[in-house]
Amino acid sequence: MSKRGYTFAAGEHGEWCIARIFAPLGDGLAAAARLAVHNAVGTPADCAWSLSGMLSNERYVTRPEKSALLALPTATAPTCAALIALRKSADWWAMTQDERRAVFETQSRHIALGLELGAGITRRLHHCRDLVEDAPFDFLTWFEYAPQDEARFDALLAQLRASEEWHFVEREVDIRLRRAR
Amino acid sequence: MSKRGYTFAAGEHGEWCIARIFAPLGDGLAAAARLAVHNAVGTPADCAWSLSGMLSNERYVTRPEKSALLALPTATAPTCAALIALRKSADWWAMTQDERRAVFETQSRHIALGLELGAGITRRLHHCRDLVEDAPFDFLTWFEYAPQDEARFDALLAQLRASEEWHFVEREVDIRLRRAR
Repeated sequence: MSKRGYTFAAGEHGEWCIARIFAPLGDGLAAAARLAVHNAVGTPADCAWSLSGMLSNERYVTRPEKSALLALPTATAPTCAALIALRKSADWWAMTQDERRAVFETQSRHIALGLELGAGITRRLHHCRDLVEDAPFDFLTWFEYAPQDEARFDALLAQLRASEEWHFVEREVDIRLRRAR
Repeated sequence: MSKRGYTFAAGEHGEWCIARIFAPLGDGLAAAARLAVHNAVGTPADCAWSLSGMLSNERYVTRPEKSALLALPTATAPTCAALIALRKSADWWAMTQDERRAVFETQSRHIALGLELGAGITRRLHHCRDLVEDAPFDFLTWFEYAPQDEARFDALLAQLRASEEWHFVEREVDIRLRRAR
């Protein structure tokens, strides 16, 4: 059975070169040269910082939405990656499921934007909130894509950041990476 | 900020006397005299077994349902408790949110049954699935009630166990407790 836990460890080693670390909201993360991705939860020795999360069940998408998302082309030759780390506010977490879905999709079109702009961009969502007390982030989303798709990926992020959902984001760090040769 | 993590540790110590451990589905848990409830995640030394989970956000209830649940009377003089530990199947977790909600409420009336039968029964749900890999249970639900409400609590459990939702339960352990004098 494949493990659901992943750790992203920044430092001197790893298969990805860190091109940029940008913090649109709240505290950033320390600069580092490389990022290693481990299929396990833990704190690797000898890293500048590490973030862990678990793959988990779908929280918002309906079956028709999921089928449409799965029908999108995935990344071919993905030499670029992005790690978007988010923490949402207590107000977000106090909402009921119907209230969160209304903000997430009815108001913010999070899934619709993914369908419109996400072709060729592979996405993997890791949950952190129920892994440890007071995790620095609630979500770590890992994206892989080809260089020519980065502008479309930026357009997708720009629309999400302008959405109602982002009023509930209190920390966001955006890390861009290039596959090490 | 209050901690969301809890650990239920069975052994020789604790504020609750274990009256019965029953496993309707799958493997049970070893007999023990007492249960201690700690507001932290971890493995206490010197216990027969322990189970940990985290309080988390609502996954199914709508705001009107939550308001109705919050309006129910809570337990007064709750000298009885029950810990119901559940693991659901891979088929459950592969469903999308709308599919799980349809089984949970439209078909199984999980929330409606709680509203009909839950007066005087205090409930606290702990999530385990995203806390560690391969957790023995996905959920630990802790109930407290007065002795005269136990028959109604049993009726609620009987209806849930007969529901469509329980076709997705692959392990269930039901532990009954009395407050130590």
